[in-house]
Amino acid sequence: MEETFMPFRGIKNDVQGRLLCYRQDWMGGFRAGFRILAPTTYIFFASAIPVISFGEQLERNTDGLITAVQTLASTALCGIIHSIIGGQPLLILGVAEPTVLMYTFMFNFAKDRADLGSELFLAWTGWVCVWTAILLFLLAVLGACSIINRFTRLAGELFGLLIAMLFMQQAIKGLVEEFHIPERENPNLVEFQPSWRFTNGMFALVLSFGLLLTALRSRKARSWRYGAGSLRGFIADYGVPVMVLVWTAISYVPAGSVPKGIPRRLFSPNPWSPGAYGNWTVIKDMVRVPILYIFGAFIPATMIAVLYYFDHSVASQLAQQKEFNLRKPPSFHYDLLLLGLLTIICGLLGIPPANGVIPQSPMHTKSLATLKHQLLRNRLVTTARESMSKNANLGQVYRSMQVAYEQMQTPLVRQAPASGLKDLKDSMIQMASSTGYMNAPIDETIFDVEKEIDDLLPVEVKEQRLSNLLQASMVGACVAAMPILKRIPTSVLWGYFAFMAIESLPGNQFWERILLLFTAPSRRYKVLEDYHATFVETVPFKTIAAFTLFQTMYLLVCFGITWVPIAGVLFPLMIMLLVPFRQYVLPKFFKGAHLQDLDAAEYEESSAVQFPLAPERGRGEPFPDDGEILDGVITRSRGEIRRTSSSKLSSTSGTPSREFKGAQSPRQLDSTHSPRIGELLENQSPRTSRTVELKLSNLGKSG
Amino acid sequence: MEETFMPFRGIKNDVQGRLLCYRQDWMGGFRAGFRILAPTTYIFFASAIPVISFGEQLERNTDGLITAVQTLASTALCGIIHSIIGGQPLLILGVAEPTVLMYTFMFNFAKDRADLGSELFLAWTGWVCVWTAILLFLLAVLGACSIINRFTRLAGELFGLLIAMLFMQQAIKGLVEEFHIPERENPNLVEFQPSWRFTNGMFALVLSFGLLLTALRSRKARSWRYGAGSLRGFIADYGVPVMVLVWTAISYVPAGSVPKGIPRRLFSPNPWSPGAYGNWTVIKDMVRVPILYIFGAFIPATMIAVLYYFDHSVASQLAQQKEFNLRKPPSFHYDLLLLGLLTIICGLLGIPPANGVIPQSPMHTKSLATLKHQLLRNRLVTTARESMSKNANLGQVYRSMQVAYEQMQTPLVRQAPASGLKDLKDSMIQMASSTGYMNAPIDETIFDVEKEIDDLLPVEVKEQRLSNLLQASMVGACVAAMPILKRIPTSVLWGYFAFMAIESLPGNQFWERILLLFTAPSRRYKVLEDYHATFVETVPFKTIAAFTLFQTMYLLVCFGITWVPIAGVLFPLMIMLLVPFRQYVLPKFFKGAHLQDLDAAEYEESSAVQFPLAPERGRGEPFPDDGEILDGVITRSRGEIRRTSSSKLSSTSGTPSREFKGAQSPRQLDSTHSPRIGELLENQSPRTSRTVELKLSNLGKSG
Repeated sequence: MEETFMPFRGIKNDVQGRLLCYRQDWMGGFRAGFRILAPTTYIFFASAIPVISFGEQLERNTDGLITAVQTLASTALCGIIHSIIGGQPLLILGVAEPTVLMYTFMFNFAKDRADLGSELFLAWTGWVCVWTAILLFLLAVLGACSIINRFTRLAGELFGLLIAMLFMQQAIKGLVEEFHIPERENPNLVEFQPSWRFTNGMFALVLSFGLLLTALRSRKARSWRYGAGSLRGFIADYGVPVMVLVWTAISYVPAGSVPKGIPRRLFSPNPWSPGAYGNWTVIKDMVRVPILYIFGAFIPATMIAVLYYFDHSVASQLAQQKEFNLRKPPSFHYDLLLLGLLTIICGLLGIPPANGVIPQSPMHTKSLATLKHQLLRNRLVTTARESMSKNANLGQVYRSMQVAYEQMQTPLVRQAPASGLKDLKDSMIQMASSTGYMNAPIDETIFDVEKEIDDLLPVEVKEQRLSNLLQASMVGACVAAMPILKRIPTSVLWGYFAFMAIESLPGNQFWERILLLFTAPSRRYKVLEDYHATFVETVPFKTIAAFTLFQTMYLLVCFGITWVPIAGVLFPLMIMLLVPFRQYVLPKFFKGAHLQDLDAAEYEESSAVQFPLAPERGRGEPFPDDGEILDGVITRSRGEIRRTSSSKLSSTSGTPSREFKGAQSPRQLDSTHSPRIGELLENQSPRTSRTVELKLSNLGKSG
Repeated sequence: MEETFMPFRGIKNDVQGRLLCYRQDWMGGFRAGFRILAPTTYIFFASAIPVISFGEQLERNTDGLITAVQTLASTALCGIIHSIIGGQPLLILGVAEPTVLMYTFMFNFAKDRADLGSELFLAWTGWVCVWTAILLFLLAVLGACSIINRFTRLAGELFGLLIAMLFMQQAIKGLVEEFHIPERENPNLVEFQPSWRFTNGMFALVLSFGLLLTALRSRKARSWRYGAGSLRGFIADYGVPVMVLVWTAISYVPAGSVPKGIPRRLFSPNPWSPGAYGNWTVIKDMVRVPILYIFGAFIPATMIAVLYYFDHSVASQLAQQKEFNLRKPPSFHYDLLLLGLLTIICGLLGIPPANGVIPQSPMHTKSLATLKHQLLRNRLVTTARESMSKNANLGQVYRSMQVAYEQMQTPLVRQAPASGLKDLKDSMIQMASSTGYMNAPIDETIFDVEKEIDDLLPVEVKEQRLSNLLQASMVGACVAAMPILKRIPTSVLWGYFAFMAIESLPGNQFWERILLLFTAPSRRYKVLEDYHATFVETVPFKTIAAFTLFQTMYLLVCFGITWVPIAGVLFPLMIMLLVPFRQYVLPKFFKGAHLQDLDAAEYEESSAVQFPLAPERGRGEPFPDDGEILDGVITRSRGEIRRTSSSKLSSTSGTPSREFKGAQSPRQLDSTHSPRIGELLENQSPRTSRTVELKLSNLGKSG
């Protein structure tokens, strides 16, 4: 992305880029068919459940002025508008915790003012939203999002982990509260007797841990060993919603023998209760707000604007990480402009505004990557089978797959066309000719189509607007479905919060580095295997540890700040501080190449071109052997280790031969030396690949 | 084992065999040092906890005549005597569920007789024990255990699974009871109010699932990625006892806010309570039993004798499965004789007798295999490092390891000396010479000693008497430690029962075949990989399914029979029926070769000599290629699949290259054709091993 501060330039670029793919955004979604429901329901739950919980929190904090009905309405409204006219449709909008905190703070300020009071509170927040929107417009127009380039993994992943901590904190807090009498409840009720209170707490433990453990398990269903593939696929796609239903059903099992209030369930008014309409006419009251407060609203507005600017952009950025190999362009500037518009609408309707949320947005992209994989897989499997049924040889089967793959590619690409399949052509054909099947018709006893294709496909994301629109509409439907939602026990909610926190961890390299610190040295090579983390190979362990410890300290400071009563809302400022810190301070403590590996920054990229081979030579190598450098290249740029001999001497038997695939994006496979590697790969001597194995086994000792 | 019915022949052979290794049985134990405590504590808990629970059951059923004090005393006494003068020290003795059922039945019979009553009940059981012992003496002397050869996996594993089901049933029953008012308790106590009862149930769920999940996790600690190796080792060795302590501690956390009886804890009298001595003087009362009842005691005695004969022998057999590669001889006949003696002693002391127990006995062997592995590993690692520090080359390092390994071998071997290391010499040296390290000094950057050795070592068991003696003594100490044991919540007990049931499953091929039925066809090859189950390769899936379904039906019938009030005790008879069934009926339904693969029987072995190659030819093969037969041999007799090429064409990438080791015992490696295979193995063409892979990937489709 170009770093431009010319007024309107960023917005113009964004709109142009997204308009080009607008039609495909919809067509792609519809073409996916019913399968789109898997990511949709997954994200719907991830979106709706926290919003309901935040609504309950706001209800307690604002004496019932804002309830889950309002937070759900805001999330649905903003979500629908954003999914239709927004820039980046991967971004999920919702009412978030910082918004809740800001509204609580504003209510506490307003309710004691004689000339404002709780009566004019919503009207006043309307003014706050107006000012916030004006500030967001300014930021968008002036190209403030250009500096998003400077937000490296360091800041983004720290923020992601902080949000995960806040979710986990909420889960723990909620569980502990299940043992106590809730505020604003009549403590004389039968369910608040000590014995029933304790029962409620224990029941809550069972329900929340039950949900957490089963939901985590179900996400991994695809790799289960038991059950038919379609069943496993269904469980992996819909397991989490199903588990919410199952544990809600279980919560009714002892209904006969416990008082009605056990376990505790969601508490929210029905949208058709009297008084639930108060906020919709807030625009009439806005003129009644004293002029002093209208201007005073500018102060909270600046805080909210900074918060939204950061939150929205980082959520969008995390949903578009490089690992996802997105093809369509980003849209930071235009989305910020639209956020301003949404904020005004919400303000005038007297509902708290929604903004881009973490971890839902990256979760959305991840679930769409799974969807895209399934779609590609089905298409290619069908093609290959058809081709085989016509007695095609391997070359022909491959060509038909290649054609089908290219047909499925989005015509508008951000980068060069992915060469995911092309790259494998040579090795496949070479193998075929050496085994003698090159020109003979092949069948599935020789060529296991489904597995081949799984191995073959790169990470791609089904980029479309439909899933976002559907999930936002479903959130809207929740308002009407309130009487049903109220049956969910609060403890299931806490389990779900913990689930979301844990689900957001994989893929966060900061988290993976924290784990690496606790990994026994002899097992560190496994990290390389699982996460495809090249830095494990190229950066000394001490440097990784120092970098990670610094980041952890910073995280803890940020977490501490969220506990500070009012200033806590501004914890994103702390994280923004990381940007100059990363750019000007960190390079003084860490070597450029190491920093680049641990935390790639686009603005540093020009200076790191020579990198692929340099650090490899720099290390003290046990094998002064040409094969070594070659292996380094193979290992890094293919993300694969190939194994030719399997003698017992190999110290890593059972592990390194699991090929490390998918470590690199197709873009990297296009780099200049890759064709030569393809050739070398087939001709390498057993000795060469032997060296790779030994290197791997030594990895544990290098730190 | 020779099948002899010559009086005393079996006992004589057993005594001769075990006497030869008697000294080593003790020396070996002491030489292991403090590490022997790991299997000791592990088995102590597995032994003591069910015995305490059975004691509580007996206490309820016999109006307090027999309590946990008596069952513990019997287990300790029999265990100590058996560990010192018994034949097979791997066998663990304990009071088992069938004994409890028999005693309950006898008490119900005795208490209503005017001339017997509960007063003379223990004296009468004394007579039952005398008769039982006489029958056991007869069985031992006449060589009844010879037919143990005919007890194939079919019967043994079915029995093992049945015991696991009974343990699991007890766990579930116990947990359900936590929600109800226990019998013989005052229902007006505060802890039995509905609210506290429900609390108790929920708390029990938390405690038992907490124990179960953490205990299962801790057993796998050695393969954790995090934490230092020594910590992981400690957790794996002592995790289960530690978890019992941890969850007992957790049960005290809410002590301030719940009544004293929540959660429910063990209930047993202290051994120094008045009346707890009643049984020790039972021998005086035995003469007071009416003569009719003395002879009548013969009827229950036959049932118990049959039960013990079967239980004791099968427990001993399961503790000595072929997979363990034991070196010392079995001792079925002599152990049965000793069991008769122990039964008399227990009878005269008025305590219920102990016999060989499942799953504790196989658990014992397994934990000693782990111990032996650690000891061998430490020794070999030290040797290799010393050798390397003297700049030895690979050949020299290997030779020094070979010497150290042979020094650690038990001098008295049942079979030919294990060739675990020897077997690998050729491939290691060949590899070394090809990579150029043959004569150069090597260091750990090239040769990862610890991993090498882990891969190298065959399964061996630390066969000694010390762990058995120690665990039995600790069970004895429990009698004195009753006030401490009483702090364990009953719910932790139920969790532990479930843990024992689950722990007994791995390695049970019947269970693995049941799982195989539920495995998706495309993932069946994974079974081969994990369990080294050759039958997956050699027997058609339909035959496996039919065999397993038959076995499952039989299991369910046996399980159903345990519910029948009195006859239920004789469920072992049902299992003994399997022996003739297997020998005469099953061969009519299944092919001999298949049956041999699924359920190897020694008496059939002579007729299956030609087997290794025959069934391989019988199947329709996609590759009419000499390499195919060779692969079959390699696969079966080495238990390993070797992989030479790793092109993407391979449909099983990532999996089959994990070498399948340990599938075969060293004994099989010694078989006549193995040296030739060793040579062929190194020279096989890529095409040959390619065929293995393709075969593997086809496996899923064959069923």
